Amino acid sequence: MTGMSDRIKVWGDSRSGNCYKICLLCAEMGIDYDWQEVDILAGETRTLKFLAMNPNGRIPLLCTTDGRYLAESNAILAYLAEGTTLAGADRFERAVVLQWMFFEQYSHEPNIATSRFIIQYLGNPPERRAALDEKRAGGLKALAVMEQQLQVNEFMAGKRFTLADIALFAYTHVADEGGFPLDDFPGIRRWLDRIRSRPKFVPMTGAVR
Amino acid sequence: MTGMSDRIKVWGDSRSGNCYKICLLCAEMGIDYDWQEVDILAGETRTLKFLAMNPNGRIPLLCTTDGRYLAESNAILAYLAEGTTLAGADRFERAVVLQWMFFEQYSHEPNIATSRFIIQYLGNPPERRAALDEKRAGGLKALAVMEQQLQVNEFMAGKRFTLADIALFAYTHVADEGGFPLDDFPGIRRWLDRIRSRPKFVPMTGAVR
Repeated sequence: MTGMSDRIKVWGDSRSGNCYKICLLCAEMGIDYDWQEVDILAGETRTLKFLAMNPNGRIPLLCTTDGRYLAESNAILAYLAEGTTLAGADRFERAVVLQWMFFEQYSHEPNIATSRFIIQYLGNPPERRAALDEKRAGGLKALAVMEQQLQVNEFMAGKRFTLADIALFAYTHVADEGGFPLDDFPGIRRWLDRIRSRPKFVPMTGAVR
Repeated sequence: MTGMSDRIKVWGDSRSGNCYKICLLCAEMGIDYDWQEVDILAGETRTLKFLAMNPNGRIPLLCTTDGRYLAESNAILAYLAEGTTLAGADRFERAVVLQWMFFEQYSHEPNIATSRFIIQYLGNPPERRAALDEKRAGGLKALAVMEQQLQVNEFMAGKRFTLADIALFAYTHVADEGGFPLDDFPGIRRWLDRIRSRPKFVPMTGAVR
């Protein structure tokens, strides 16, 4: 327990898409927060102190204003936006928003974000080349599924900007850094522009290189 | 659109933990459903007809009583249980339930369920041995995180049986079939028994071999 506070606290890496999701949502909702920068490669998520806050040793991590910890980027989004239309306006839309958030964590992030991590964080070492190749098909498939959705919908869950867009924007807008240029995905590129042009949009601050 | 119906319809593979989650929840809630058995290995999730219902080509897939499709096992759970304490009793508990559901899809399923798939569905072919080895550490880590939680809590999200338990029971109770015997995880074994002894519990019907 960190104790009571006026502001939520977020532990994150400003180059990480999973962490950037929280910045995007807080900007959209006007939520103030304290940011604690964490260096994964320096082992800062594996310290006893960090593991006491999140036994799974991952960022982002949230501490609520009443001092409770919450992990998993998309669960943090759901917590912060609960009861707003960002989480969906009715029961079915809320489920569709979650559907795309689970798609993001299962079919998109492990391919696209992990490829970006191997290339940009680890410097694309030869011993990870096979892993990178394996992730190529899965990443392209995830982008094709998004493209199909965005060819006929303005946003991932339909007509409305929701947490599904925030969750998927995070790593899609830097997909090229993972070896996935978006030239063949015009629907995705229009959607990225649509999100970038939102009044309260904030760019990712951390440079990956 | 499948049209209006009195009952929800579920496309699934009765040997799949992701699909079994829906059976567990429907039994717990007393929801009747029609089940359509799908053979992944025969390519039944890759047909044009199936892809028109779920462009991501995965099961389980739900059709609601008003004829709308919903994919992703954990989003289906959230849809069916919305507004009940199975989804969590307050805002923070609902977020913690989701936290464990995202943990399940990101840290647990890709290691433990996929190992089971390689061994039991694919017959443990030599060319997948390296993939299997890679998943070993991740699977053991996920089980260790669960064990730590279950050493001090009756259920994954705390004192209450929730969707987090359903989501994690599905592949944990067959973890040994993926090469993860649970001898070193007494908290997990007690929790499995606690779930199995619930009045409305239903076993997984499909035999994996």
